[in-house]
Amino acid sequence: MDQKILLKESDIPKQWYNLAADLPTPLLPPVTPDGKPIGPEMLAPVFPMNLIEQEVSTKRWIDIPEEILNILYRWRPTPLRRAVNLEKYLGTPAHIYYKDESVSPPGSHKPNTAVPQAWYNKQFGIKNLVTETGAGQWGSALAFACKLVGLSCKVYMVRISFDQKPFRRIMMNIWGATCIASPSNETNAGRKILAEMPNTPGSLGIAISEAIESAVTDSSGKTRYALGSVLNHVLLHQTIIGLEAKKQLKIAGEKLPDIVIGCAGGGSNFAGLAFPFTADKISGANMEIIPVEPTACPTMTRGPFAYDFGDTACMTPMLAMHTLGHAFIPPPIHAGGLRYHGMAPLVCQAIIEGLFKPRAIDQVECYKAALLWAHTEGSICAPETSHAIAATIQEAKKAKEEGKEKVILFNYSGHGMMDMLGYDAYLTGKLAPYELPDTELASAEACLKQYPKAPQRKSGKW
Amino acid sequence: MDQKILLKESDIPKQWYNLAADLPTPLLPPVTPDGKPIGPEMLAPVFPMNLIEQEVSTKRWIDIPEEILNILYRWRPTPLRRAVNLEKYLGTPAHIYYKDESVSPPGSHKPNTAVPQAWYNKQFGIKNLVTETGAGQWGSALAFACKLVGLSCKVYMVRISFDQKPFRRIMMNIWGATCIASPSNETNAGRKILAEMPNTPGSLGIAISEAIESAVTDSSGKTRYALGSVLNHVLLHQTIIGLEAKKQLKIAGEKLPDIVIGCAGGGSNFAGLAFPFTADKISGANMEIIPVEPTACPTMTRGPFAYDFGDTACMTPMLAMHTLGHAFIPPPIHAGGLRYHGMAPLVCQAIIEGLFKPRAIDQVECYKAALLWAHTEGSICAPETSHAIAATIQEAKKAKEEGKEKVILFNYSGHGMMDMLGYDAYLTGKLAPYELPDTELASAEACLKQYPKAPQRKSGKW
Repeated sequence: MDQKILLKESDIPKQWYNLAADLPTPLLPPVTPDGKPIGPEMLAPVFPMNLIEQEVSTKRWIDIPEEILNILYRWRPTPLRRAVNLEKYLGTPAHIYYKDESVSPPGSHKPNTAVPQAWYNKQFGIKNLVTETGAGQWGSALAFACKLVGLSCKVYMVRISFDQKPFRRIMMNIWGATCIASPSNETNAGRKILAEMPNTPGSLGIAISEAIESAVTDSSGKTRYALGSVLNHVLLHQTIIGLEAKKQLKIAGEKLPDIVIGCAGGGSNFAGLAFPFTADKISGANMEIIPVEPTACPTMTRGPFAYDFGDTACMTPMLAMHTLGHAFIPPPIHAGGLRYHGMAPLVCQAIIEGLFKPRAIDQVECYKAALLWAHTEGSICAPETSHAIAATIQEAKKAKEEGKEKVILFNYSGHGMMDMLGYDAYLTGKLAPYELPDTELASAEACLKQYPKAPQRKSGKW
Repeated sequence: MDQKILLKESDIPKQWYNLAADLPTPLLPPVTPDGKPIGPEMLAPVFPMNLIEQEVSTKRWIDIPEEILNILYRWRPTPLRRAVNLEKYLGTPAHIYYKDESVSPPGSHKPNTAVPQAWYNKQFGIKNLVTETGAGQWGSALAFACKLVGLSCKVYMVRISFDQKPFRRIMMNIWGATCIASPSNETNAGRKILAEMPNTPGSLGIAISEAIESAVTDSSGKTRYALGSVLNHVLLHQTIIGLEAKKQLKIAGEKLPDIVIGCAGGGSNFAGLAFPFTADKISGANMEIIPVEPTACPTMTRGPFAYDFGDTACMTPMLAMHTLGHAFIPPPIHAGGLRYHGMAPLVCQAIIEGLFKPRAIDQVECYKAALLWAHTEGSICAPETSHAIAATIQEAKKAKEEGKEKVILFNYSGHGMMDMLGYDAYLTGKLAPYELPDTELASAEACLKQYPKAPQRKSGKW
């Protein structure tokens, strides 16, 4: 059996899978701060209607337009690889497979949704997309997609990343996007914050506020906003990952995996791999599905399930999700993509149902896992991805203890070529374990009390 | 037809192709400064005998050990892709194919030889490898290979790159290699230079001198030196690229290519793609084969064919090659891998035979080509690779003018994830065209006059 299982372009899935169709309990609707459900039309200034339709859809399968597939073929289907060398090193009877999403030109899973988002906006007559980015993985993916589809692209990038990590900013420039350090003087939100805190390093919450303001205030009507995770349609587009992986596991001679693992910041790469398998679990398959987050930002494992805003400035609708509070400032860990205060509502609802068992792992253990990975499998993963690898190693060791030949599947969400400084900090002993103090959680809960309460609906059937 | 043509692992070539077997005129032997041919035994302190045998071999096909293939499978066979979007943009009738060598974990073609070199050294009982690196592409590939094979690895890295481009240094550290800024206090060569020029930025020539000294003075006898290009056995290992590409073009329904293109610094990625097709040209096929170099370092297009040293400190044997002189200090262009004063003797001999038509292109045209590539094909190439793309665009435009449906094949030797600063310099208008002044060439020729003269043996049959 080959170490990498490849699919032909003609084998690519032709539909996305929508977990909302199969969730035992329907999702809670987004609401306004006074608790009123938000209808599709209220989102129209922010997103094009064709994407809003996907956002609220409960159809199980949604066709992928051929024009989108034609762009995805540049790097899709992605390889499913077997980590034979890590297996050997660990002496585990487990079969470890990973879906390699690092092969896209921007180097992560993000283009799986950036391309459809750009394409649907263009179909709707939109000319410009605006977004925000932290370390730059999403911003570079959207810049890439806009260039290929033919839209202009503007990215508000958290100022400290803009200054300290110029490489992804340059990537965006290569693909023709404008990249602006946030907070900026271009928006009211930005000007207000700069007036109060001229030396602020910025935050993702501020950048989201600026990007949304920039999109909705453009008088041409040809500008919309794009988000790289959290929302239903974003997760939908990512399910191509798990749908491909299913076909590939079959080629490898495996049945369904026993364990499915992905790191989770906003939830999109985890959901992309896990949702198609979640359908099997709902239908009765025996499977553990594990979203992994850093102990420094323990949204799923310690954050309450509550209505909260997506951004710091409270401009977005309120979403029912596990959250550390929209005012939460995560410590500056190197896995920039896992520092979001909230989590995708679809993922949260499945956690409540008992379908997923979230796990938090400290970044020091994660870097240790990333090093072991580089020394056995040979590739250098993104710091985000290292969380999935650390959980995989935990499970592979457990399988060894139990003497069980389990099939473990995880999502290799991105490469670490742009993240060398984090590795350097680890290698030179500058990283210490970090556990979020209880006091921080208490203040998050207090902050959320003023808003409508999300019903707690535990099913626990799984 | 798929945009990417993939091979199964079982389709990987099982032998390397040795152009030395088919060259109409045999290679000139390496010589000492007083003109005496250097025999294999004189190389024994530097390289293990199994690699020296490959270096001097004239056997046409050399078996690839299965243990090496098992490591290469991590990323090989690499995809052959068709640049349909660039074709469309240019409106050319040409079919443009490229062999994607950027998919290896270190991101270039270099591991194709780093792995066999590490493996043969280990077979010979060697425990440690020492090498030098400029920008770090070769150093990181050897670090990767040594980690997977189980050798320790030490890399002398040109000081200015060590200081200004820490990312590839960190990659080497991730794979467990020691990386030392050169000149260093660890060798006589380094100490001597530091005493004379304490603030020198270093050079590849100095780093080679330090690496060789470090290898040959190790009293354990378990240490050898490794080189990433130029030598026959290095080029041999790279021929797996062209051998795979041949199979893939057949799958794509094409006959032999009309034009084969690769960028050339020391010559290894170019040779890897081109040599298997050169055999067809020698047998009568009509084909243009074009090695591309920067106008800033025009070794093949303007340098004389002469006996010269591989390093600045004159420690290596003298090789018959096109050279700008071992004292040549190339301008600091961003394509660090194309700044070598010499060129692989096998490539040079084929140029003399008329088999290859070298071409020099300025870096500004190359970055323009790289941008067009990113905007059409979507991926960000290494600055070295952009030279191959620029030549490909020239040829595709020519095919359009002539109205000919030519098949163009080029080597996409590496990605540009570590080379953002060069792109930034281009995008912000900081790069200017650079043509090497004639005076520099005259001083190179003068310097070479004191050494044995290489016979000029032009065949011109092709």
